[in-house]
Amino acid sequence: MDIETYITDLGSRARAAAREISSATTAQKNAALLSIADAINEGRKSLLESNKEDLIAGEKKGLDAALQDRLELTEKRIDTMIEGLRQVASLDDPVGEISDLKYRPSGIQVGRMRVPLGVIGIIYESRPNVTCEAASLCLKSGNATILRGGSEAILSNQAIAACIDIGLESAGLSKNVVQVLDIIDRKAVGELITKPEFVDVIIPRGGKGLIERISVDSKVPVIKHLDGNCHLYIDEKADVEKSIKVAINAKTQRYGTCCTLESLLVAESIAARVLPELCEAYQAHKVEIRGCDKTQKLVENIIAADEEDWGTEYLGPILSIKIVADADEAINHINFYSSQHTESIMTEDHDLAQRFLREIDSSSVMVNTSTRFADGFEYGLGAEIGISTDKLHARGPVGLEGLTSQKFIVLGNGHIRT
Amino acid sequence: MDIETYITDLGSRARAAAREISSATTAQKNAALLSIADAINEGRKSLLESNKEDLIAGEKKGLDAALQDRLELTEKRIDTMIEGLRQVASLDDPVGEISDLKYRPSGIQVGRMRVPLGVIGIIYESRPNVTCEAASLCLKSGNATILRGGSEAILSNQAIAACIDIGLESAGLSKNVVQVLDIIDRKAVGELITKPEFVDVIIPRGGKGLIERISVDSKVPVIKHLDGNCHLYIDEKADVEKSIKVAINAKTQRYGTCCTLESLLVAESIAARVLPELCEAYQAHKVEIRGCDKTQKLVENIIAADEEDWGTEYLGPILSIKIVADADEAINHINFYSSQHTESIMTEDHDLAQRFLREIDSSSVMVNTSTRFADGFEYGLGAEIGISTDKLHARGPVGLEGLTSQKFIVLGNGHIRT
Repeated sequence: MDIETYITDLGSRARAAAREISSATTAQKNAALLSIADAINEGRKSLLESNKEDLIAGEKKGLDAALQDRLELTEKRIDTMIEGLRQVASLDDPVGEISDLKYRPSGIQVGRMRVPLGVIGIIYESRPNVTCEAASLCLKSGNATILRGGSEAILSNQAIAACIDIGLESAGLSKNVVQVLDIIDRKAVGELITKPEFVDVIIPRGGKGLIERISVDSKVPVIKHLDGNCHLYIDEKADVEKSIKVAINAKTQRYGTCCTLESLLVAESIAARVLPELCEAYQAHKVEIRGCDKTQKLVENIIAADEEDWGTEYLGPILSIKIVADADEAINHINFYSSQHTESIMTEDHDLAQRFLREIDSSSVMVNTSTRFADGFEYGLGAEIGISTDKLHARGPVGLEGLTSQKFIVLGNGHIRT
Repeated sequence: MDIETYITDLGSRARAAAREISSATTAQKNAALLSIADAINEGRKSLLESNKEDLIAGEKKGLDAALQDRLELTEKRIDTMIEGLRQVASLDDPVGEISDLKYRPSGIQVGRMRVPLGVIGIIYESRPNVTCEAASLCLKSGNATILRGGSEAILSNQAIAACIDIGLESAGLSKNVVQVLDIIDRKAVGELITKPEFVDVIIPRGGKGLIERISVDSKVPVIKHLDGNCHLYIDEKADVEKSIKVAINAKTQRYGTCCTLESLLVAESIAARVLPELCEAYQAHKVEIRGCDKTQKLVENIIAADEEDWGTEYLGPILSIKIVADADEAINHINFYSSQHTESIMTEDHDLAQRFLREIDSSSVMVNTSTRFADGFEYGLGAEIGISTDKLHARGPVGLEGLTSQKFIVLGNGHIRT
């Protein structure tokens, strides 16, 4: 079968399944999620075997250690998948929620009802547990899903897909509600992202290269998660002790996440009280500091930051530091260089905190808090399918609600317009 | 100047203006709206003169009567523009609204703040009053706007733009907050819709051809308003009297609007009690009826409907009618043929009404109500910039809220993640 026919068949099945799952009851969806968890629990042995084959093939292909690590399923990672499924089952069902139902002067009642988006395409790289995570969130939010994982994880993904099938069928749902692409050919992705008749939204999960490639070529709306070049600004009126604690946590608690601090701004009037102690702590953590001229004068053993540094997401133990005249300069610098992901201010000045919240144009804006909190679980969304750096539809961590939309509902009793 | 440079300059000015208007106060934005209203009121004479020149040029070019009518400004249409501006000034400001601010177990507070989208590009056809309507809604919602009207209305649009400039400046705002393209070359649109660095969303207003062309070529998200092939289903358990009243209103109250009824479905068991009387009323209104076989047997002088009719938005005094076995067939027919705009059911059966609301996948779903109510004013949005038939971001009538997005805000007191 050629790839276009393959995607057309798959897409048509997804469309029909979307209709089915959109009106499934909460009980039915939860039963499916719990059955998938059970099937994964019972299928551990076969999951690990399939995964081992992927790992061996990866080794032969010379995949690097980091990639092999992301590809690997362990007993503990399987436990996490199972726990995740049970947790999604325990979340409130967003579908069908009616809000703002009000009487209008004409006598009709107008409100909004939360509804699924339809068919969601997830394109991701090596981590096979994404298969389970993404499928569970789409299922609970009443959407059909088409999953396309990395070619290096194909056997692991198929083994997980088999467990998902068992769970769906035992809950009386079509297995077309979640479909995993079983062909490796890259053209399949090209077909999938140019078929708005079959797919309502594409969510790519992976490196920046993957996301940019898909965004450029897609004819379907894409929920993008691009860079996380996150800033912390320590203001003149900041509490020094809190600021140092937060600045260290934001950078060093984990280096590789999108909400890790990448660039620190400090008001000139407080820099001498903050930076020497803070940089000493960073250096103890082996964080490489790249500073502006003024920072270099205050602290020893610092590399000079260049223009490129202000726009870079290091995703590692490197931090750029700039001393700024005041909050105006900090706000302008952030709005110019940031990737609109997460920015935070340290200040005890209420008016300035309010202004920062209002004027910083990023998906998460924080006061006196570590940027590391920018996460669906920490925000109380229950789980997240990704973080959106887009402006339309969803900004920031995307949970179940971000996988739905709202339609208008109107109730009358024979009302006509005059 | 070449067109690319022209759009780059215009786009850069819009970006800077977007930053300014996003943090303007409510009072400042309202002052600008009221000043624009005053400037239009005082500039009536020059508006009418510019419009007359456009009309004369249109006549020479041989524009048809309908187009010339849409192009024309009258004293009454100018009054409506002024009234619209004052009404938008009186609406609540959506920007900065904080919702769902809650404490999380970690001790941080997480909520959402409503924020402007940034720069909105409006591409429209002949009606010059759109210049004023669109600019006022974008301004109130804190966005910068780039407007591109039809070439036949260029002098009228420039005259309105001059009034907008006066209003913005008298409120201390940059006139770059609202920019009207003053070149006719179609390439300018091509440039505008492929520059996401300058424009955050494109809203085309006009015929289906325009909207499809822009959607295909755009590299910027588009809020689309495609067909309104709206359905009314009269169920077995409908009240006959109410149903006839609503069905007549939905079709005949206005023929040319997107929420006008285009296809009527009637349950077989009630058809003989409803259709003869209803069709007589339609025929008195000179509505051409195209019916299925069964309808033709019940009512005389009816044209046969073919497959194409079920998918057609007539925008005129034509209606297709189909007799269906039951609600299942009606729901399936609608979800297959509708353009997901507005659909309504007539029934006294509570369970079925709930099911219809849930299972019909359209931007507005109604019970016992005329489809003609699908309108921003009737829904209480205050005003509308268009109606979205998309699923992401906004569905149905788009008011001020649809021109904004929500970011997360996080408040702490030195909180760190552990």
